[in-house]
Amino acid sequence: MNDENDVCFPEEAAPEQELLCIFGTGDFGRSLGQRLLHSGYRVVYGSRRPHSCGPLPQGAQAMSHEAAAQLASLVFLCIHREHYDFLETLTPQLQGKVLVDVSNNPKKNLYPEANAECLQRLIPGAHVVKAFNTLSAWALQNGPSDANRQVYLCGNGAEAKQAVAEVATKLGFAALDKGSLSAAKELEDFPLQLFPEWRMPLYVAVGLTALIFVYVVIRDVVYAFVEQGKDNSFRIMVSLANKVFPIVSLIMLSLCYLPGVIAGFIQLYRGTKYRRFPDWLDRWMLCRKQLGLIALGFAFLHMVYTLIIPIRYYVRFRLSANTISQIRENRTSVFDTTTAWRTDSYYSIGILGFSLFLLLGITSLPSVSNALSWREFSFIQSKLGYLTVFFCTLHTYLYGWSGFLRPYKWYMPPAYMLSLVLPSVLIVLKLLLLLPCVDRSLTRIRQGWERTDIDLPSKSSIIR
Amino acid sequence: MNDENDVCFPEEAAPEQELLCIFGTGDFGRSLGQRLLHSGYRVVYGSRRPHSCGPLPQGAQAMSHEAAAQLASLVFLCIHREHYDFLETLTPQLQGKVLVDVSNNPKKNLYPEANAECLQRLIPGAHVVKAFNTLSAWALQNGPSDANRQVYLCGNGAEAKQAVAEVATKLGFAALDKGSLSAAKELEDFPLQLFPEWRMPLYVAVGLTALIFVYVVIRDVVYAFVEQGKDNSFRIMVSLANKVFPIVSLIMLSLCYLPGVIAGFIQLYRGTKYRRFPDWLDRWMLCRKQLGLIALGFAFLHMVYTLIIPIRYYVRFRLSANTISQIRENRTSVFDTTTAWRTDSYYSIGILGFSLFLLLGITSLPSVSNALSWREFSFIQSKLGYLTVFFCTLHTYLYGWSGFLRPYKWYMPPAYMLSLVLPSVLIVLKLLLLLPCVDRSLTRIRQGWERTDIDLPSKSSIIR
Amino acid sequence: MNDENDVCFPEEAAPEQELLCIFGTGDFGRSLGQRLLHSGYRVVYGSRRPHSCGPLPQGAQAMSHEAAAQLASLVFLCIHREHYDFLETLTPQLQGKVLVDVSNNPKKNLYPEANAECLQRLIPGAHVVKAFNTLSAWALQNGPSDANRQVYLCGNGAEAKQAVAEVATKLGFAALDKGSLSAAKELEDFPLQLFPEWRMPLYVAVGLTALIFVYVVIRDVVYAFVEQGKDNSFRIMVSLANKVFPIVSLIMLSLCYLPGVIAGFIQLYRGTKYRRFPDWLDRWMLCRKQLGLIALGFAFLHMVYTLIIPIRYYVRFRLSANTISQIRENRTSVFDTTTAWRTDSYYSIGILGFSLFLLLGITSLPSVSNALSWREFSFIQSKLGYLTVFFCTLHTYLYGWSGFLRPYKWYMPPAYMLSLVLPSVLIVLKLLLLLPCVDRSLTRIRQGWERTDIDLPSKSSIIR
Repeated sequence: MNDENDVCFPEEAAPEQELLCIFGTGDFGRSLGQRLLHSGYRVVYGSRRPHSCGPLPQGAQAMSHEAAAQLASLVFLCIHREHYDFLETLTPQLQGKVLVDVSNNPKKNLYPEANAECLQRLIPGAHVVKAFNTLSAWALQNGPSDANRQVYLCGNGAEAKQAVAEVATKLGFAALDKGSLSAAKELEDFPLQLFPEWRMPLYVAVGLTALIFVYVVIRDVVYAFVEQGKDNSFRIMVSLANKVFPIVSLIMLSLCYLPGVIAGFIQLYRGTKYRRFPDWLDRWMLCRKQLGLIALGFAFLHMVYTLIIPIRYYVRFRLSANTISQIRENRTSVFDTTTAWRTDSYYSIGILGFSLFLLLGITSLPSVSNALSWREFSFIQSKLGYLTVFFCTLHTYLYGWSGFLRPYKWYMPPAYMLSLVLPSVLIVLKLLLLLPCVDRSLTRIRQGWERTDIDLPSKSSIIR
Repeated sequence: MNDENDVCFPEEAAPEQELLCIFGTGDFGRSLGQRLLHSGYRVVYGSRRPHSCGPLPQGAQAMSHEAAAQLASLVFLCIHREHYDFLETLTPQLQGKVLVDVSNNPKKNLYPEANAECLQRLIPGAHVVKAFNTLSAWALQNGPSDANRQVYLCGNGAEAKQAVAEVATKLGFAALDKGSLSAAKELEDFPLQLFPEWRMPLYVAVGLTALIFVYVVIRDVVYAFVEQGKDNSFRIMVSLANKVFPIVSLIMLSLCYLPGVIAGFIQLYRGTKYRRFPDWLDRWMLCRKQLGLIALGFAFLHMVYTLIIPIRYYVRFRLSANTISQIRENRTSVFDTTTAWRTDSYYSIGILGFSLFLLLGITSLPSVSNALSWREFSFIQSKLGYLTVFFCTLHTYLYGWSGFLRPYKWYMPPAYMLSLVLPSVLIVLKLLLLLPCVDRSLTRIRQGWERTDIDLPSKSSIIR
Repeated sequence: MNDENDVCFPEEAAPEQELLCIFGTGDFGRSLGQRLLHSGYRVVYGSRRPHSCGPLPQGAQAMSHEAAAQLASLVFLCIHREHYDFLETLTPQLQGKVLVDVSNNPKKNLYPEANAECLQRLIPGAHVVKAFNTLSAWALQNGPSDANRQVYLCGNGAEAKQAVAEVATKLGFAALDKGSLSAAKELEDFPLQLFPEWRMPLYVAVGLTALIFVYVVIRDVVYAFVEQGKDNSFRIMVSLANKVFPIVSLIMLSLCYLPGVIAGFIQLYRGTKYRRFPDWLDRWMLCRKQLGLIALGFAFLHMVYTLIIPIRYYVRFRLSANTISQIRENRTSVFDTTTAWRTDSYYSIGILGFSLFLLLGITSLPSVSNALSWREFSFIQSKLGYLTVFFCTLHTYLYGWSGFLRPYKWYMPPAYMLSLVLPSVLIVLKLLLLLPCVDRSLTRIRQGWERTDIDLPSKSSIIR
């Protein structure tokens, strides 16, 4: 910056760039320092061995912790929690400073207290802000990208948070205030999580897929081999897969809407909405979105597997063989209008069901659902959701058609029949809830009304 | 919190949790109280009958309005607007307090003035903030999810808004400032809306679908039945649906780009861009995105319905019957290169058109369009948009091919011909606007230039 | 506003609407003024010829620059940078005022200094804020929509930025603080950009497509014409396109993951992660997302082109001709289980690969990737990404099968073989990096460890 510019910004722009201090010369500290220098800050490192702390980013200086802390009003702590203790000796130097705790733990619940809270307890005179811990060192070196765009921060001092937010903004990140220091635990757990809310739905999906796969292999391949000596095993790759996918999809779609119906019955039975649901139901309800999205994935696979049917070698061979045998045996097959109606309806209903399902998926994208009012969101997810369940179930019934009456192989009903149990139950329960009298009670309960005669007999005499 | 901690946070953390007051013990008030308690606040309720106000969330206390208001600096008003009047008696207690108006009305335009503005008028000494009204009671009880992530707030006092934003953040919501109290009306209308901007496009879509469906049923099913005694009705489910979908899609796609062209001609005629468009055009332009997205939905259905053609019973039957008759009659059909070129081009153009259309759809996702500069956005929506119109129209012309000259059934041209009228007109008009001389005038007008000779003759002598 | 209201808002609401000043009566100035008036502000224009500055928005006044500047505390400068000089004469009037620089330049790097920084230098006593320049005049007239929702602002004074942010919020836009005035250059370049990060990947895509298209045309069409005198040209529209798309897709997918592997080897060789990669690698890594998304687009086209195969005239003709010739020659083709296994596997693996690819695409939507922790994001993009590469490569190998041994036409191997080179190399290199010993070294390096023996021999004696 030249002299002329110094004159130009007399009030606002500092003639010198701001100096920040970093404690710790490990990977994170060095990446952070590099980025800070890149964005126009000056950086000093505090180190136990300032003269032998390894290569530092060009332009940064290393000195003792005491000296470094005294120079800057904002100190980044890039050290592990186990080494926090020595900070107590720096209490006088850190008095009134903003301490940015960027630490993470190797696993969850290692300590009862969040690192940042522990730090605040150690140095009560400093303003501890938890921040930057959700970023990767890569993002710190190279700037924001995709999942590394936001810097979450929390702390008890508004001004301290503001100062850290300004640094984050200047580095190119978007600062998001998550409240007081009590949110630090949540922030420290965030980088450790790997799809926690997807875990249970994925287990269910994998379990169901394995189960149904074994079932259809026994029924279609093993049976044919044992009873007829025929090798059907080539059917595994597409035909059987295309039986497993729609079945898992339909069951998981039902599992996605079932807890809502169960919750309705529980509320009706209890006569209030203010008592917590049982824990298993709570957990189930919290993963409905994930259940639905996995079901959508399986429905997508089902659609594509269905669409490739006509280009399969096996199908082409069979169709051609069929035509040839008609010629050779001089048979004439007659066009059956009922079959045409049934199969076309079955395809049509399936496509409409899938399209609705896709719409549900699109509206659950964060940016789309944020733009909806909750009346709109619940209209789509509830009204259109049940319509989707209905279409997909109807699609399966039309697929089965008269097949429901055919004799079973080895007493095993076709797999699609098994898949119909849950959605059928769901639809019946939902219809019960839609009966005018039931619906009226439930609506009142959901609007906060409470039946006082059952659970709270002692209060029934009180006029409200 | 133990004593040690009290020592640790001498400046920032309050030794006690903050106390908030809620007026009203109805559903919303109780849900809100439960959530506040859950997030670490202390809660008192103000009630007319503090001793008989029904079950409250555990940990909350009920007292008279006066007593409750005096304890807290922030008061949530969870009462209906009709009962606001009694608040006037509390004017001394509410002086200087932050009043959070969470109320909604059962329908729009019930009152000339927003509830929050009415409240501010009643108690001029309080700082009214409109907030939380866009959330469902469910979200308040259970925390943020999908469409319930954001708390919009507005009010005249910056500090009051800040205080409410902090509570919202602490409850886990994202607070979004919508400006002064004059925005309250908008916030109060938000939860009542159910896709207002989708209504007209949906009506158009349903109307067009019905119309064209009836048309093709008459032309394909009724005609065959009356004239040839053939029952074609099974074609309704797939064949006819797959005629209706692309036609509606193409018409709606044209409707999406037509208003832009019309606006161009109006601006050319008027010689200025500063006069408002007629109301119908304004409304039409505002729902272009929705028109386009619905058209994309129909195009998607068209694609899937087309792809299932070869697995249909009817199609397989006809293909096989065709082969058999060739054998029996000892005919040999000759491969026609022109037909191969035409049909392949028709499919290819259709797929490319659909892919471009999909790209338009993806870039209109809120999070994607927010990341684009308007130059990029208008490049995609305008340049690629017209290319999409062109491809889809060409696809339909190639589909028609020589069919344009065939005699009509009952004087009814095939439905696809009808669908070509609007896009053809659109393309011609757009080409006119792209003529160098016209384009130059229009560009100047859109950059703010005004033709002064027509509308403002009195000013034509003034040198600008 | 009536008197009663004036009493109601004694502290916060101004009895009069705020007055803002706009310098410049061009297109942008007039559009901005119209919108400000619409949102309840009062507006005065500063003009050199206040009495002949053309039609202004209704309700706005024009006066001399001096007079206008004195009335308002916030001045919008809607004038070109070339005319900034005259502002120096207004220094006394602009002292302490907030100056909003909305200017853009016709192209990048026209001036060494950002317009806003130049302005700040001219009038050091004013608080310059860069804002509103990323909006189109259309958005200013008509309010926010799609790509025009955000007002980015930067400046050195926090209060000045706050004031401008409030105006933006009141106009309905979302204000986003981008830091100090040094960010002005970036903001001024933003509206000029047209997909800068997409340019290179698009060039690669177009180049590859052209190259491979020519290759397959020579091999399939020209060869057949020259050697066998057969006109195969109709195959261009679908058959050849469907060869080009998957090949380009697979190559670009490899190009998307290759730089990561190369970077790993460079880091291993150098023994540190703190030295910058060569420039070409840096640039390559920055467009990986775009490479991947374009590859996904080609994969989508490949899928749809494959699915329409059975409805093509050519395919139907060939299948029918095949059946007829079987009959006439009284041949009986035997069902080949190996072929069934191979083709079904090939389809199945392809579908799974495409589905994973789609998942990668969905998670790279801004709103989805923002919701992921970087551990989750890197799990998906890295683990699932390599699985996608593996599936797609396996799909191509299964497609080739025994074809690898067939004699070449004109010494040209089939195009799919060429496409396999890059992904095969990529997979081998990745497997090398996954060898336990290599993986351990690389992990240590990425956690910040540095090998000291090679590059820094002078330091090898220092105990760290």
